[in-house]
Amino acid sequence: MKCAANIDARMVEETAINLDPIQVAGRLTPEAMKAVIAWGDGYSVCDNCRKPFRLDYIQNPPLKEFHVELAEWLGMAQARTVPGARRAFQQVAGTYVEKGDPVLIGALAHYTSYLSVEICRGIVREIPKTADNHITPDDAANRIEDVIREFGTAPKLLYIDHVDYQFGNMHDVRGVAKVAHQYDVPVLYNGVYTVGVMPVNGKDLGVDFVVGSGHKSMAAPAPSGVLAATEERAEEVFRTTQMTGDLTGRKFGIKEVGIIGCSLMGAPIVGMLASFPKVKARVEQFDSEMANSKIIVDALKSIEGTKILSEYPRKHTLTRVDTSGSFDVVAQTHKKRGFFLSSALGKKGITGIIPGATKVWKFNTYGMTKKQAEYVAETYLGIAEENGLRVA
Amino acid sequence: MKCAANIDARMVEETAINLDPIQVAGRLTPEAMKAVIAWGDGYSVCDNCRKPFRLDYIQNPPLKEFHVELAEWLGMAQARTVPGARRAFQQVAGTYVEKGDPVLIGALAHYTSYLSVEICRGIVREIPKTADNHITPDDAANRIEDVIREFGTAPKLLYIDHVDYQFGNMHDVRGVAKVAHQYDVPVLYNGVYTVGVMPVNGKDLGVDFVVGSGHKSMAAPAPSGVLAATEERAEEVFRTTQMTGDLTGRKFGIKEVGIIGCSLMGAPIVGMLASFPKVKARVEQFDSEMANSKIIVDALKSIEGTKILSEYPRKHTLTRVDTSGSFDVVAQTHKKRGFFLSSALGKKGITGIIPGATKVWKFNTYGMTKKQAEYVAETYLGIAEENGLRVA
Repeated sequence: MKCAANIDARMVEETAINLDPIQVAGRLTPEAMKAVIAWGDGYSVCDNCRKPFRLDYIQNPPLKEFHVELAEWLGMAQARTVPGARRAFQQVAGTYVEKGDPVLIGALAHYTSYLSVEICRGIVREIPKTADNHITPDDAANRIEDVIREFGTAPKLLYIDHVDYQFGNMHDVRGVAKVAHQYDVPVLYNGVYTVGVMPVNGKDLGVDFVVGSGHKSMAAPAPSGVLAATEERAEEVFRTTQMTGDLTGRKFGIKEVGIIGCSLMGAPIVGMLASFPKVKARVEQFDSEMANSKIIVDALKSIEGTKILSEYPRKHTLTRVDTSGSFDVVAQTHKKRGFFLSSALGKKGITGIIPGATKVWKFNTYGMTKKQAEYVAETYLGIAEENGLRVA
Repeated sequence: MKCAANIDARMVEETAINLDPIQVAGRLTPEAMKAVIAWGDGYSVCDNCRKPFRLDYIQNPPLKEFHVELAEWLGMAQARTVPGARRAFQQVAGTYVEKGDPVLIGALAHYTSYLSVEICRGIVREIPKTADNHITPDDAANRIEDVIREFGTAPKLLYIDHVDYQFGNMHDVRGVAKVAHQYDVPVLYNGVYTVGVMPVNGKDLGVDFVVGSGHKSMAAPAPSGVLAATEERAEEVFRTTQMTGDLTGRKFGIKEVGIIGCSLMGAPIVGMLASFPKVKARVEQFDSEMANSKIIVDALKSIEGTKILSEYPRKHTLTRVDTSGSFDVVAQTHKKRGFFLSSALGKKGITGIIPGATKVWKFNTYGMTKKQAEYVAETYLGIAEENGLRVA
């Protein structure tokens, strides 16, 4: 029984300012925490499951209403919850991609995009990134043509990240979707860094699917996510089972194939639901998040030898920075080597950056107050000056 | 924001004795509740994710150790966690089943077994149930022969429930597996009613895969489950990605295809981990669970006109009962109609049976004390007598 004896209480969010690239928008709201405590037991939300016996029809807690609101909020016809965005990718790929079928994916995409095609035995072709790390409609068009030449068919699907995980850059989803639709290629919008963080309207963007992450960006417990679709695509991706038992004649009603009936039967969906009002409200405040981000980005930028690798001005709170010419120079002679930076930050109550990283690293300022942003900026500048780096 | 305003705190387990067929073994332990509170935030367990960047390698909390212990405990070579047993079915089917491939499934199986084959575009053939509602090795052998005649190939996979969800009957897994292996058919053991409830050893049973449910039977939050495999099958079902970006040359290390890299990044896995010591201990006490079950089953059996539809003596705490000749007779003239029974039980603090059900229904006695079992038995007898039913 060694395992369990070692589970310490996690205190990260209580004791520090967290800059972790993937964690900051997934912290629970107090409402979500309360809901998770009350609904933590296994199949808790199934108390009042009645015909037609499907999670998204449960009225108490109001999961049915939640699913309807979720779709509206995303500008899509229908929405479902899934155990993580990756499972939404899998569900969409599983609907359209068979063995040997080509799928186009932006070259900055998360590995789960690629694996969701591999799991269907499909073949990935990449849309290249430009020199300034963007995925463009022109490149998408060229690659669709390449795929048609190679496979004799257009891609079965195209994945485009609105904001990518590598640079936090924003890509021209609308332009890419327009091009894709000229070839009748369905477009999967990867909104794991946007849905729940900034306003997203799938209809305005002209995409077929919107995928979001509950635990990354909707203040919900893992594993949770959303998959929303247009009416036309909903019929395909949310198709109900056609299975019949060959001996028994058993049928399974309106259970959906892609989600295998029900998805999030407890804590994650109640957490997502409980956070939803605040999440809806916070996306409207994205400007102030960017203002906070700017305070820290500009501070880092002012440290001689530091480069912001993400697009600038920033359009998202996730930023990639290169401190090879600043903090890493310090690391080479510091007695703590590369750990001097995380150690110095830790002493000031700042966490979430991989310990030892002094060359290229990412941080995410989402969810902090202006005062915290100023504190983080001052702390970085202070560490720079203490270690003999020049600040402009 | 109507949704969230309606989330009341759930008080079912605090205020009543719950007989819900699917909920009772998924209630959190106090240890799990504590862990969920501390680790509820989105990607909480990723704090200390280091190379090789995979959930089952994380050492704090001790997820790596947990995965190793889990496999040992189930008598299998390797284990992974998944977002629900259904996702384990999907993972196994996705490994072996291509379009048009036949899969054999016991006719008492849960709908998710069928849908996990449908999602891969496979074809289900059923192993019939006997007159006394069992799946037998002989029937499995006959159906394998049928499949070979029909498809020119043996089934790609065979699913067998150890204890089925319809009757809570126990099936001869060892015998079925032996037959299947004579035809080189891999066997998926569905242990959603056994893993975490009674001792399960996949090696002794001779199966290729053991699937369990965290939220059904391991005192963990949903959606959670386990998939364990023999060494030979682990190489297949837990294969790592072979994907390479065609332009970028990107590769994705040891991320596993079937699980799309990582699975339960927060509350569910920490809950499962925290409950694990108690779960390991409680499976050894299954005899006393059966003794409690017997108290209630025998009480119901003594009410004239009531039939136990499950095998008797019982081998599991999930039982199906037919009260068409007893409580349903009362319902026909009672002013509350079929709701008299749930209403009477509710007044006595007993819940979990679908309101209005007086003909065929199921209940699960798992996790109650002897005193609670006696109280439930007395309550049923009391309701019978108050309503003029004879008790033997």
